[in-house]
Amino acid sequence: MTTTHRITFLPHNREITVNDGETLIRAAMDAGIHINASCGGEGVCGKCRVIIEAGAVEGGLSEQISPADREKGYRLACRSMVTGDVTVRVPVESAIDSSVLRQSYVPRRTARIQQKDLNDLKEAGLFLPPMEKVYIELPEPDNQDHLPDVTRLVSHLKLHHDEHRLTVSLPVIRKLPDVLRKDRFRVTATLARPVFESGKTEIINVQAGDTSERNYAIAMDIGTTTIYGQLIDLKSGAVLAEHGDFNAQISYGEDVISRIVYAEKEGGLERLQQVVAETINTIIKKIIRQAKVDPEDIAAITLAGNTTMTQLLLKVNPRYIRRSPYVPASTLYPPIRAVDIGLALDDHVTALVYPAVSSYVGGDIVAGVMGSGLYLDERLTLFMDIGTNAEIVIGNKDWLACAACSAGPAFEGGGIKFGMRAAKGAIEDFSLDPITWEPMLMTIGSVRPKGICGSGLIIMTAVMFELGLINNLGKFNRDLPTQRLREDNGVWEYVLAWAAETQIDRDIALTEIDIENLIRAKGAIFSGCMTLLAEVGMSMQDLDRIILAGGFGSYVDLEKAMTIGLLPEIDPEKVIFIGNSSLLGAKMSSLTNRIRRDVVEVTRSMTSFELSETMSFMDNYVAALFLPHTDLNQFPRLKERLAARRSALGPPQTA
Amino acid sequence: MTTTHRITFLPHNREITVNDGETLIRAAMDAGIHINASCGGEGVCGKCRVIIEAGAVEGGLSEQISPADREKGYRLACRSMVTGDVTVRVPVESAIDSSVLRQSYVPRRTARIQQKDLNDLKEAGLFLPPMEKVYIELPEPDNQDHLPDVTRLVSHLKLHHDEHRLTVSLPVIRKLPDVLRKDRFRVTATLARPVFESGKTEIINVQAGDTSERNYAIAMDIGTTTIYGQLIDLKSGAVLAEHGDFNAQISYGEDVISRIVYAEKEGGLERLQQVVAETINTIIKKIIRQAKVDPEDIAAITLAGNTTMTQLLLKVNPRYIRRSPYVPASTLYPPIRAVDIGLALDDHVTALVYPAVSSYVGGDIVAGVMGSGLYLDERLTLFMDIGTNAEIVIGNKDWLACAACSAGPAFEGGGIKFGMRAAKGAIEDFSLDPITWEPMLMTIGSVRPKGICGSGLIIMTAVMFELGLINNLGKFNRDLPTQRLREDNGVWEYVLAWAAETQIDRDIALTEIDIENLIRAKGAIFSGCMTLLAEVGMSMQDLDRIILAGGFGSYVDLEKAMTIGLLPEIDPEKVIFIGNSSLLGAKMSSLTNRIRRDVVEVTRSMTSFELSETMSFMDNYVAALFLPHTDLNQFPRLKERLAARRSALGPPQTA
Repeated sequence: MTTTHRITFLPHNREITVNDGETLIRAAMDAGIHINASCGGEGVCGKCRVIIEAGAVEGGLSEQISPADREKGYRLACRSMVTGDVTVRVPVESAIDSSVLRQSYVPRRTARIQQKDLNDLKEAGLFLPPMEKVYIELPEPDNQDHLPDVTRLVSHLKLHHDEHRLTVSLPVIRKLPDVLRKDRFRVTATLARPVFESGKTEIINVQAGDTSERNYAIAMDIGTTTIYGQLIDLKSGAVLAEHGDFNAQISYGEDVISRIVYAEKEGGLERLQQVVAETINTIIKKIIRQAKVDPEDIAAITLAGNTTMTQLLLKVNPRYIRRSPYVPASTLYPPIRAVDIGLALDDHVTALVYPAVSSYVGGDIVAGVMGSGLYLDERLTLFMDIGTNAEIVIGNKDWLACAACSAGPAFEGGGIKFGMRAAKGAIEDFSLDPITWEPMLMTIGSVRPKGICGSGLIIMTAVMFELGLINNLGKFNRDLPTQRLREDNGVWEYVLAWAAETQIDRDIALTEIDIENLIRAKGAIFSGCMTLLAEVGMSMQDLDRIILAGGFGSYVDLEKAMTIGLLPEIDPEKVIFIGNSSLLGAKMSSLTNRIRRDVVEVTRSMTSFELSETMSFMDNYVAALFLPHTDLNQFPRLKERLAARRSALGPPQTA
Repeated sequence: MTTTHRITFLPHNREITVNDGETLIRAAMDAGIHINASCGGEGVCGKCRVIIEAGAVEGGLSEQISPADREKGYRLACRSMVTGDVTVRVPVESAIDSSVLRQSYVPRRTARIQQKDLNDLKEAGLFLPPMEKVYIELPEPDNQDHLPDVTRLVSHLKLHHDEHRLTVSLPVIRKLPDVLRKDRFRVTATLARPVFESGKTEIINVQAGDTSERNYAIAMDIGTTTIYGQLIDLKSGAVLAEHGDFNAQISYGEDVISRIVYAEKEGGLERLQQVVAETINTIIKKIIRQAKVDPEDIAAITLAGNTTMTQLLLKVNPRYIRRSPYVPASTLYPPIRAVDIGLALDDHVTALVYPAVSSYVGGDIVAGVMGSGLYLDERLTLFMDIGTNAEIVIGNKDWLACAACSAGPAFEGGGIKFGMRAAKGAIEDFSLDPITWEPMLMTIGSVRPKGICGSGLIIMTAVMFELGLINNLGKFNRDLPTQRLREDNGVWEYVLAWAAETQIDRDIALTEIDIENLIRAKGAIFSGCMTLLAEVGMSMQDLDRIILAGGFGSYVDLEKAMTIGLLPEIDPEKVIFIGNSSLLGAKMSSLTNRIRRDVVEVTRSMTSFELSETMSFMDNYVAALFLPHTDLNQFPRLKERLAARRSALGPPQTA
């Protein structure tokens, strides 16, 4: 168990419990305490001075703190590691009374993480093992018993294991004679169960001796950018190894459209198929080595990806996906042999491909719906996977509707002046002093800032809006008394870090254009949800919960996302995060055939809406191009906070 | 219609109707009229002189006939072509009266040929089309209709063609998008029907436009020596093209055992698989070109072969077939893709492989049982496929038993001093003058003799035995007044043709050792039948009919085969010949799924007897090492003929 400590921040008089070794500045950020800091936590700006009033911290000393101040208990918050209970005073403007301090506290909340495993499936009655191993000892043939090898195996399974309706594939027939005679007709058969009871059980592999304890599968998420794989123990449901890598198709185009364009060239489709198979094979190799399993003990691989990634993987030309009326080749694919699509797995391994709903709501989303159990739940759920394209599913066990909307690349740092992917040096957290308008920046890796990632962008915009630095159109209050607000080439911006504090020797700023792009992106998603809800006769108020999927959902500050109107306002307890939903769905399908049984009906019944062809979408979109929305009444808690702040502070100070 | 003419032979006063253009000597042979002839019909020995007494023939003149004799009507029978009704006098020994002549007449009878076709199947209620083509016109997608291509196709078939439980293979998904858009969503789908109603119909191909009239399949017999293929029109059941070629595996061993030995070598199995696929591909290419069909219109290929040939074709190592207890890998094989075994057919073509019963009763025999309809018939039937190995099936619609016996190569000319395959120059027909013991020889191609083929050997032995040139032990009556009987190196032989009359410049003779080998071969087969019948509590007398299969059955003289005791004595009307039964079965399976439905049960219920492990086999074998058998009572008609001849001729003349 991790040791935790209690920190009390003064004058706010706010307590927070943190893990041993946490820095004071991150603790303050989590507690909603602003401490000026613009170097991202690297300890160079020297602004994050705090006073240790009781207890002690490790480190926190710097030449920027004079010996006298050191004696008084001054430390740099970003360099101070919490090793015991401690009371910390944050020097603040005297003009702010504690009631203001308290009101500025909106606790940082990321979504609750939900993981499902084999026991959940068993408890829910959803467990239908897809691949089973059976150890058997067969009688040896002799002059009275000439049964063919296959008949010997099949009859024994029929008589002694109640296995009927068995089929045997040619590769198994090929290896059976030698395998039987390797260990005196004692063998382990791998049985692939049918999805439906009317189907047949296929003997997909035979091994000499007893290998029944070693039964594995692979789950794979084929993302446009990244591919993740897991090696799963089918006996326990445990993930034995996991690895991710960039999809090597990136060299042929960053997004799905450019991949489709490439696939239409002579030999392009074959090339893209080959390189994605190579990436998958690299991952397979790594996770097999990592988990130390025998490749022959792997029975199946389940793959989930968006519609284009799926078609490229299966060498099905995706050309009509990008042409009106945007029709995919298929949404369902039959089980195939993994080797047939160039995967470096044994002959007997079955490849199962997640079905899709449409050209833009693919197998990755369906995997999320299945893996999260959304399709079995009574609660009305909003499922969102946010990236360049945001896919939305709304529904419950009785009905499901889905849509995709193009959010643009803002959440991944695209179209943002200093935007970057969520990597080391990206500003990921932000706070603002409502009197001095000085910032508090946290970067990934606590190094000097290089740029702004998607989650940082959302937090900044939310904080700036709530404190009045920007208005509900995303425009700066140009009258505020801070040098950080300035006009550069006709564009207003707020300087987050001065050149000397950065890694890039340029001032890092957030511009009104950046904010505009973010508003467009969140507007597209929110109006997508609105439109979809309206199409099914519902409203945001009817939602029982939200499921967030994708990397984005793991770190986004829920309250901030609601503040800018990206997410509808809902009790954060009702928001759950399921991580890589595509991988989760692939994993769950590896563990039970129940999902494969249900998924056909789910994809068939899921209504797919083309937002661009839905009349109300444009109206909803225009209405969503505000912070948080034209209709503030949809965000009652934010409305209340804004009103409280206004009454405490009065209108934003102008001098 | 062929023009026919009537020939009357004198002094026998026997009439026969022959086709226009037939030679007089072949007409005589068919009528059971002996005319001395030892050059095979080439016209060089000049022995076959006859007198045209009425009517006329074309040709028949030779320098061996003097102008005076020509005037008298003398002609060489082998050079005389029948072009009108004619009366011919054969000069015979005056010692023979006409009653003898009449008694020596045993009409030449080959088995009645039975062919089955699509109409027979339909009439018998056995028609379940295995591959159907459906032409459909689909609505084109638009902004209101985004159905994926596969869904569009499948839904339409469901709604408008009552097609449920459809599956679509990956290759079809790959081609569908382009095919749909080639001819405005008008396509023809090829549907592969399930064997059992519980199965699914698979869409295995789609083609632009209406190709529903063009639906073909291939049937292939994979023989150890020869491979035959047929291209079949599935609409009409007609055979559009047929071709045979030597199995290229011959270079790696003449018989199955040597092939198995080769397959056990490093890379041997792969090599044998490759070369048999190459032979098949050569045949496929030829019959496709011959029939002028588009390869894309071929839906399936059905292959039948013995157990070893089947395993080699499917790259299943046959090593345990030749090792006690002689166990095959499998007797049933799943449908596979033709391309997966290296066949030069379209991606979508399904390869169906005939199931076997055991290591030595293979798919070729099962194909015969299925194709002949034996398994559905009430009559107790003996089915025989005679070659180096003879396979025997006895039974009817209620039960089936089978066995294989090694006959040795005598029927194919092996182990016979002047033995040869049935090729040009092989003595294939024979008659003997019971006074002078001069022979009448017919060769394949009517050229000077080169050797003796299997059917010739049987006829010679039968004729010699019936006329008393050899006794029931196969030994020559050494006292007979003919130079043709002689001892050479301690072995007695009968000279069929003197060196000058042959192509090989050596006397061609039949030796006692040759006859001994033939008796062993026929003894093995007959005792196999006896043993099998005894095992199921039956005897030869219970047989309702005999079905002969294989090339051998097409030309064997039935009466002669009964005379030597190769076949049980039965009304020749009850013997039918079905040709290449393996090919017939493959063809019938291509036409209806009913056979595939039934065959699993047939192979399962067919009792296979290992003769070498059946106690009574050796006794039966020893009893069969006589002409026709120790127990002449089993051959009542022959017994009667022998008695009649004895009373007419007295014991064979000794001088």
